Amino acid sequence: MVLSGIREVYPGMIGKDYYTSTQWFSGWLTGLSGSGKSTIAVETEKRLIEMGKLCYRLDGDNLRHGLNSDLGFSPEERKENIRRVAEVAALFADAGLIAIVSFIAPYRDMRRFAREKIGGECFVEVYVKASIETCKRRDPKGLYKMVESGKIDRFTGINAPYEVPEHPDLILDTETLSLDECVNQLLSFVKEKP
Amino acid sequence: MVLSGIREVYPGMIGKDYYTSTQWFSGWLTGLSGSGKSTIAVETEKRLIEMGKLCYRLDGDNLRHGLNSDLGFSPEERKENIRRVAEVAALFADAGLIAIVSFIAPYRDMRRFAREKIGGECFVEVYVKASIETCKRRDPKGLYKMVESGKIDRFTGINAPYEVPEHPDLILDTETLSLDECVNQLLSFVKEKP
Repeated sequence: MVLSGIREVYPGMIGKDYYTSTQWFSGWLTGLSGSGKSTIAVETEKRLIEMGKLCYRLDGDNLRHGLNSDLGFSPEERKENIRRVAEVAALFADAGLIAIVSFIAPYRDMRRFAREKIGGECFVEVYVKASIETCKRRDPKGLYKMVESGKIDRFTGINAPYEVPEHPDLILDTETLSLDECVNQLLSFVKEKP
Repeated sequence: MVLSGIREVYPGMIGKDYYTSTQWFSGWLTGLSGSGKSTIAVETEKRLIEMGKLCYRLDGDNLRHGLNSDLGFSPEERKENIRRVAEVAALFADAGLIAIVSFIAPYRDMRRFAREKIGGECFVEVYVKASIETCKRRDPKGLYKMVESGKIDRFTGINAPYEVPEHPDLILDTETLSLDECVNQLLSFVKEKP
């Protein structure tokens, strides 16, 4: 469908070949709670906007409270959560926007589903890496404390599994890299559609 | 969140006030199967692209086969279908794209939900109007024939309800208006965000 999925259209390009200027990138940040996914996602979005790129950030804030507000945190619901996020990211990719997806996505098979759905050639799986000890110490949302006091069940990395990516496209170790270094490495994957 | 929901960013606007050039419009085409929703949606998208507007069309083709592929056509599933479509349309509106939504959406309460979710001030409910006799005669997808031969249950307008919009923002009567007239009337609702 030629007209489905209009890419970046600038006024000067009207009637010309829209698709040649398309940026090709969907980044999926996976990692433990507190690993730094959101911080990197927000800063990457900011940098892309400064670069004049169309992008949109998909994360728990806009998905878990809206589209996926009917889902809890059982293994089945977490899979359905990621399935829907992947489907929405695919729509944004089809619309020509750079999607920055920031979700724990603990299961390998769901990350594989996301890659297939969004399209392997523009999908970048980013493992945002930090030890569980570091994540606990950072605890930006106070969630680890709530797990310890028994207020949260089934928390990834504590009493729910996190399947470490085996072949991520990029590893960002937030214990050794600065935020700027992480964002620069991630942005190096943004490329023009051939 | 300032940087969530970047609107139309053109290169010349980098660092300036992105939001002033935003187009403000989410059109929801509701009506019977065969009323002309898809035809109007495709042509409207084409015209918006020619105008250099960022837009994206959400319809059964990209939603029912992806995000909502787990849903059937019972009343509950139809409501859930429209709930998800409304949530996705709200994300596209937040991203600054013009969303053209083309779904039967037979229930008033779900169309009201969509309006509230997407934001009343940019939401345009469009009743694409044609009599059931006309729709049956057109039968572009051969669905009415399949209903008659018993191959489809619960078909809107035949043996499932369609709640006619009571106060739509626009009525496009496809029995009397040409396609061009329909699209022009719809496009008159596209406005700059103040």
